Amino acid sequence: MKPLTTTDRTRVKRQPDRSRDDRALAYEILDEGRVAHVGFAVDGSPFVIPMVYGRDDDRLLLHGAKASRLVRTTGAGIPVCVTVTLLDGLVLARSTFHHSMNYRSVVIMGEAHRVEDDDERGRCLDVLTDHILPGRSAEARGPNRVELRQTDVLVLPIEEASVKLRTGGPKDDPEDLDLPVWAGVVPLTVTAGTPIPDDGVDGLPLPAALT
Amino acid sequence: MKPLTTTDRTRVKRQPDRSRDDRALAYEILDEGRVAHVGFAVDGSPFVIPMVYGRDDDRLLLHGAKASRLVRTTGAGIPVCVTVTLLDGLVLARSTFHHSMNYRSVVIMGEAHRVEDDDERGRCLDVLTDHILPGRSAEARGPNRVELRQTDVLVLPIEEASVKLRTGGPKDDPEDLDLPVWAGVVPLTVTAGTPIPDDGVDGLPLPAALT
Repeated sequence: MKPLTTTDRTRVKRQPDRSRDDRALAYEILDEGRVAHVGFAVDGSPFVIPMVYGRDDDRLLLHGAKASRLVRTTGAGIPVCVTVTLLDGLVLARSTFHHSMNYRSVVIMGEAHRVEDDDERGRCLDVLTDHILPGRSAEARGPNRVELRQTDVLVLPIEEASVKLRTGGPKDDPEDLDLPVWAGVVPLTVTAGTPIPDDGVDGLPLPAALT
Repeated sequence: MKPLTTTDRTRVKRQPDRSRDDRALAYEILDEGRVAHVGFAVDGSPFVIPMVYGRDDDRLLLHGAKASRLVRTTGAGIPVCVTVTLLDGLVLARSTFHHSMNYRSVVIMGEAHRVEDDDERGRCLDVLTDHILPGRSAEARGPNRVELRQTDVLVLPIEEASVKLRTGGPKDDPEDLDLPVWAGVVPLTVTAGTPIPDDGVDGLPLPAALT
């Protein structure tokens, strides 16, 4: 597997012990996440927008309506930064100074480009749907021509990218270890609850990925 | 409660039915979230970085080491965009086109400024600690002078801001309602697991907020 490319923009400068340029780890994080935070600048103003995304091998896919600010802006070849973060735990140290979070994050930089071909865009939309729920594109009605034309898909190569993470317990100063303060980690996980059916689906089987 | 200020930058242009300028709702989302995605531009390159944050009434607090890129950059008065997103559910429609996510998000724009006064910065660090776990700043050892000087706190007014959210079930096209495809919502929640104690805390009481 080809390593990620580290540039001055993606090099982790603070706490480099928390950084990895491991592509497999980046894919694992991207495949587990559900929301990307997409950053771009318009006239010097930064914007950060939460978006649905998907991964097609070494390309990150985003999608938005044709008229959205992001699609209009990045269609012009403006650089974007896409960040996906998984929060794994609260790190409670004996000193407030060493409080932290356990997390895994991927930052990808580059220029996103529109997928112009209708068939290829349809395939990308399947990937995006399957990222919401694995296998879902084969269960639901696929996009028709009108829907395909109303949607833009943006592709960003997963190339200039970095992974940053923190794991494990608190790192207290030695002189604090005897303080009578509980310290440790509170693990956090995202949990799926009982599916809430829409009207009229009684008797239909749940999506395979939910059973 | 003073309404949020909507500007051309924060006005929600796509699906404005999903937008609110309700300050109380913005605070609710900010108080529930744990990670902010902070966007800023350096030499035209956008950066989006996950960060710990806190809320002190109508000010968003961020903190970072003095030498971090964010602190160096925004200390110079560069505009930032801070986004906090809560993912509430997967929306499974009968057509792939209407698949979506339920979420609540706040976008805040403006200029972040350093807190120069040591005492005020100490108070802000308590707010940041208590955002990780309520009441925690009163339990753990507070920052000493050296730690205070190693840390920067950035303050961003919660003023030019907007809330965007999606709730409820799928919005399928009428002609799709009879398709034999299950549709509905899969609720997602962040769940705290059993606390993992650090070495040497046996017999010490758990933080009040965890019991």
